[in-house]
Amino acid sequence: MLQRALPFGLEEYADRLARTRASMAARGIDLLIVVDPANMAWLTGYDGWSFYVHQGVIVPMDGDPIWWGRGIDENGARLTTWLADDNIRAYADDFVQSRERHPMEDLSRLIAAEGWDKGRIGVEMDCFQFPAAAFAALRRGLPDARFVDAGGLVNWLRSVKSAQEIAFMRKAARIVESMYDVIFARARPGLRKNELVGDLVRAGIVGTDAFGGDYPAIAPIVPSGEEASTSHLTWNDKPLRKGEATYFEIAGCHRRYHAPLCRTIHLGKPPAHVLNAEAALLDGLAAGIEAARAGNRACDVAAALFAVFERAGIAKDSRCGYSVGLGYPPDWGERTISFRRSDETELKPGMTFHFMPGIWADGWGVAITETILIRETGAAEPLADVPRAICVIE
Amino acid sequence: MLQRALPFGLEEYADRLARTRASMAARGIDLLIVVDPANMAWLTGYDGWSFYVHQGVIVPMDGDPIWWGRGIDENGARLTTWLADDNIRAYADDFVQSRERHPMEDLSRLIAAEGWDKGRIGVEMDCFQFPAAAFAALRRGLPDARFVDAGGLVNWLRSVKSAQEIAFMRKAARIVESMYDVIFARARPGLRKNELVGDLVRAGIVGTDAFGGDYPAIAPIVPSGEEASTSHLTWNDKPLRKGEATYFEIAGCHRRYHAPLCRTIHLGKPPAHVLNAEAALLDGLAAGIEAARAGNRACDVAAALFAVFERAGIAKDSRCGYSVGLGYPPDWGERTISFRRSDETELKPGMTFHFMPGIWADGWGVAITETILIRETGAAEPLADVPRAICVIE
Repeated sequence: MLQRALPFGLEEYADRLARTRASMAARGIDLLIVVDPANMAWLTGYDGWSFYVHQGVIVPMDGDPIWWGRGIDENGARLTTWLADDNIRAYADDFVQSRERHPMEDLSRLIAAEGWDKGRIGVEMDCFQFPAAAFAALRRGLPDARFVDAGGLVNWLRSVKSAQEIAFMRKAARIVESMYDVIFARARPGLRKNELVGDLVRAGIVGTDAFGGDYPAIAPIVPSGEEASTSHLTWNDKPLRKGEATYFEIAGCHRRYHAPLCRTIHLGKPPAHVLNAEAALLDGLAAGIEAARAGNRACDVAAALFAVFERAGIAKDSRCGYSVGLGYPPDWGERTISFRRSDETELKPGMTFHFMPGIWADGWGVAITETILIRETGAAEPLADVPRAICVIE
Repeated sequence: MLQRALPFGLEEYADRLARTRASMAARGIDLLIVVDPANMAWLTGYDGWSFYVHQGVIVPMDGDPIWWGRGIDENGARLTTWLADDNIRAYADDFVQSRERHPMEDLSRLIAAEGWDKGRIGVEMDCFQFPAAAFAALRRGLPDARFVDAGGLVNWLRSVKSAQEIAFMRKAARIVESMYDVIFARARPGLRKNELVGDLVRAGIVGTDAFGGDYPAIAPIVPSGEEASTSHLTWNDKPLRKGEATYFEIAGCHRRYHAPLCRTIHLGKPPAHVLNAEAALLDGLAAGIEAARAGNRACDVAAALFAVFERAGIAKDSRCGYSVGLGYPPDWGERTISFRRSDETELKPGMTFHFMPGIWADGWGVAITETILIRETGAAEPLADVPRAICVIE
């Protein structure tokens, strides 16, 4: 029944499954319950906006995984995954947002019926698709199982990208370039911000003549003026104003793979403190990209950036980057490696990061960032080609 | 520091807080930890895409609530909520996606420092922002507290809308009308679906000359042909094909309030089974809207629809509607009232629902839906005015 082309070949899914099982074996896990939608997609191809209800991919040590979810999504699993029909199992609709019963009761019965209820079961403890009530229902339903935290097990396997994954991210980078083409061409004082955002989002979905864009896992973050002193504010319908900086935290997305990129526009000549911040950001980015090479550690990238910031008198100790790739709302980050002083993860060829040194100061802010690929040798490769500077618009 | 205009007046927030406390008192809850982003926004105005990290609004029985979240979002809380600076508390960035520490350790210390650690603490047990690890960390950090499930406590208070909330939803309805204007004008065989989606999303963000659109909590669901046999599939970059039905599950959104609406287009003359389904949907919608009146129950709406479907020989027992309004990804539904046989909730004036009778059949599907407002008297009012029929495009 498979109608949509799988994003990856069957051999790539087989490799992912084998690596997942090796990691399960290393942790003594007999059965893995994967509920993170990005992990579900990475293992099976499943791609639908059904992650507002309980669902999962169940990975035993032998045999194919099972997609488990809501009845009305069963055909979606048939259409988007490589799994056989027998491995797609659905629960009845009266479990959905019920006050009487929890979907994990159905999953518990499935697990018991398969004879998997006596072993060590891995669950993604800090995953937002695994709320406390889901864990409680599973524990009630599977009293003989022992549960262990398998949070991040699959996420960590995703950190080194395959050639096909990198190809998708390069397409996402082409898309984010086209989004910035629209921003730089359209932004001007007086334009309502929602109109600018409508245009840039359209550019991201249209993509190129050769390939289209997908929905990014984060809506455009587009703060202006004083709003730019913080992160994560989206847009409103007020006009852009002369004298204000606006930064864009946006991503191109292709088949759920992201290339995030931040740039800042300034309507009118930027003041000295903004130009100083820009200079520090550009030097810091360059230093960080130089440090982002196979064999170095995540903290080395952060240290290279922070050293530049310190010389410029900029206090910043928050995370300045994270592993990026496949993602579903609310996050395009992989929730594994962070560019910060305490993260000593070794960088490996094929890892991809959003190197994200935003400056959120008192009453203003600037962000200039890159999505980078760790190469076999040499400094990291920025995937997108967008002028690395504040875009001044008169 | 408040820069963005609050969507509601202070008296409305005071009323919401008073009703929340009354509900807490009725359940014997001394302190409520609200982590659902829609509930956080409803109580305080907070509006930022920071719900991929741990955060919350802490509601004691006396004094103002506390916004608690990540340091880089602290200014966002200052800019978007009615809370005083003292009531905005942030945790250090090294708690974010850490393997060593959990943000709930910080919240536990805050709660203990305020002397709230001995009472009954309500938590949203099945909320996707409250994963099992968060609950475990809270229980470790607050050994003297007793935890009770306060899931849905705030959600249920949101079900009856204020005049201002209804005004926002009417604006969202205007926006979804403009999105369908674009769809009906642009859809044609050969057009890549991503281009059509780019245009409709742009229309939703641009809104009208008088007010702009916000990001809907669900990305456009746009399946064609056999894909329409399931729910929740988004788009791809393949051309629309003659002879295929495509349904759109989209929403207008204004200041986080949604007016979802589904319509179906058919490129070329629809076959008899699709026309029969359309007739049943239209009759069923009309019957359900007639039944959707104050004093009736949620199940009465479902029964009215299902009776029409039975006469037409259509088997459907899945939920056919849900309470709708304020929402953040991944869900614009309020996760409370459902139109289904088992839900006996009494309908009250000011409640709003997405009445959503999709038909997902073997190899095809049709959806025609309405967002409706329960009135003081008479049948419910559909908020949007989009021709209620399959749009046939030659």
